[in-house]
Amino acid sequence: MEIYSLEPHELMKNMRSRIDSELVRFFEEQSETRLDDVCMDIRNRIREFTMNGGKRLRPMLVVMGHDLFAPHSDLIYRAAISIELTQSYLLIHDDIMDQSETRRGKPSLHAALREQIKSRVSDSSRISQNLAIVAGDLADSFAHQSLLDSGMRPDILLKANVELSRIIEMTGYGQLIDIESAFNENFSQRDLLRLHLLKTAKYTIEGPLYMGAVLSGTSEDLKPLQYYGMLLGTAFQLHDDILGLYGNEQETGKSIKSDVNEGKKTLLMLKAMELCSDSQKKFIRDCLSSGNISDSDFHKLRELVRDCGSYEYSRNMMARMISKSKEYLSEVKGETRIKKFLEWFADYIVERKN
Amino acid sequence: MEIYSLEPHELMKNMRSRIDSELVRFFEEQSETRLDDVCMDIRNRIREFTMNGGKRLRPMLVVMGHDLFAPHSDLIYRAAISIELTQSYLLIHDDIMDQSETRRGKPSLHAALREQIKSRVSDSSRISQNLAIVAGDLADSFAHQSLLDSGMRPDILLKANVELSRIIEMTGYGQLIDIESAFNENFSQRDLLRLHLLKTAKYTIEGPLYMGAVLSGTSEDLKPLQYYGMLLGTAFQLHDDILGLYGNEQETGKSIKSDVNEGKKTLLMLKAMELCSDSQKKFIRDCLSSGNISDSDFHKLRELVRDCGSYEYSRNMMARMISKSKEYLSEVKGETRIKKFLEWFADYIVERKN
Repeated sequence: MEIYSLEPHELMKNMRSRIDSELVRFFEEQSETRLDDVCMDIRNRIREFTMNGGKRLRPMLVVMGHDLFAPHSDLIYRAAISIELTQSYLLIHDDIMDQSETRRGKPSLHAALREQIKSRVSDSSRISQNLAIVAGDLADSFAHQSLLDSGMRPDILLKANVELSRIIEMTGYGQLIDIESAFNENFSQRDLLRLHLLKTAKYTIEGPLYMGAVLSGTSEDLKPLQYYGMLLGTAFQLHDDILGLYGNEQETGKSIKSDVNEGKKTLLMLKAMELCSDSQKKFIRDCLSSGNISDSDFHKLRELVRDCGSYEYSRNMMARMISKSKEYLSEVKGETRIKKFLEWFADYIVERKN
Repeated sequence: MEIYSLEPHELMKNMRSRIDSELVRFFEEQSETRLDDVCMDIRNRIREFTMNGGKRLRPMLVVMGHDLFAPHSDLIYRAAISIELTQSYLLIHDDIMDQSETRRGKPSLHAALREQIKSRVSDSSRISQNLAIVAGDLADSFAHQSLLDSGMRPDILLKANVELSRIIEMTGYGQLIDIESAFNENFSQRDLLRLHLLKTAKYTIEGPLYMGAVLSGTSEDLKPLQYYGMLLGTAFQLHDDILGLYGNEQETGKSIKSDVNEGKKTLLMLKAMELCSDSQKKFIRDCLSSGNISDSDFHKLRELVRDCGSYEYSRNMMARMISKSKEYLSEVKGETRIKKFLEWFADYIVERKN
């Protein structure tokens, strides 16, 4: 457990590099199986998509969830990459659904495929989308296999895989609510918080930590750890939405206007519509449905959300969640140094710039 | 093992009804968890999609693969439905990719969703497609959960789950080859047979039988059983393609022209293009790229494929595969009555009308 003596940023960097090595190893093992050209091409693209960036927060939390209750080991890294492969799976499908052209500063998978085939395929948009749907499905299959092949105890792996499936299930429900939110006139703050809980908190924080703890084989009560994860994960999304309106394109790696152009009903927007005048409300609605907001309207929207108090409302809710998550953390049993890291991590999550 | 004294059709009927009961039980247990409206609606649709038809061949083969080497038990049915839920997952995504409007004589899932939302959503085609992508992902999650929750031995379940993931992976590769075949000018008979092996044989016959055998915990050599499954599964697809050109719409439950309108390069088409004149070859190409073939051209195409000897070629290849599959079957160890059924089943597969 020497690793936990490191300063938090160093610890994260160290774990990130070990996780990356495991991912490299996984794809190298995969590539030993020869396949038809199109299959190898797609497999390579899944590898590139996965290796290109990502902070590896999720697998890191799997490792920490495990290490809270059991000795640090190499095997846990093998199991932990499953959640990063799940992330690739979900993002590939997400980008299709959102028709996003970029991801982490590069073309999204379906966009890259479209460019590759467009000179010889007339229906290249649809075909590249189909290839990307299957690529996502394959990444999901890789996720399960990486977990099951990790060499940990069968009975424990079984429980962890149930949790992995459940994470994917909950994220799916979150995605359904997200899709429906676009045409649900009565989409409320309560609906939004459930969406964040299902679509973000579960698979970003709570699920990975819980899955890691399950992999440790502990019989401790995991409820406090789960509550920590749910609260922190929801705060993570609220912060993401703030970055989506006020962040820096260079740092976030995505177009600053994309949330608005996608018509995302974030807490910032919902609360602003509640607080402001009818004409301002109409302005916000128009911005969200424009699909291509102008620079001046975007600037005006940012000002409005700040001036009406909605920005502050989001910040306050986030702060309350962080504070509450720390309360739950204090009830968590297990390795003190990890708990200390998780306390630091709660602040990091809502202060990060990307 | 009393069940195996039944006459083959009775045996299949009996197993089908037990599999259906398990599926009903699974969805009933699921529906005990309350969810947001849109999630419950999609979950119900996955249930209806799954319960509506299907011959349940795949779960039946899981049960038989198991019973070859271990006593018949109720638990195996719980595990076996996982492959039927996988089937729902793959078909839902397939229908999106093929833009199919019907499935088993009813609207496909994305088509049904589009009808439901079109009065209140402007972009209903895309939104219903997005909902259906997630529905497929959820069905996959259900598949894993049904297997993992089946109550069988953890170490065995682990191996079976690896096989389930591998089935999904292989089917994905088959799907990629299938998509690529449409714009691959050099798509060969060899490519096609690999496609059938990966996309059909693996997940229809070989995978389920092998997964069942793995669930029995046997240490017998399973290679002969796998070869039986690969050959029979490929023959299954060749027969499917014949039904797709010469079958009866009422019996197959799908439009008789759909294979041609989708431009499917079946063995019937590939071999016909090899055997016939240049002008006939052009006619076949035009039929496959028309997207909406006329009655008279469809009639002419059928005649042509028959007259040039391609139909007979497919029938002969199928017959050789069936015969070879039976040779491998004779090397399979295990319960004699099941082997006898599987021998009968090999002929059934290429004589069925739907």
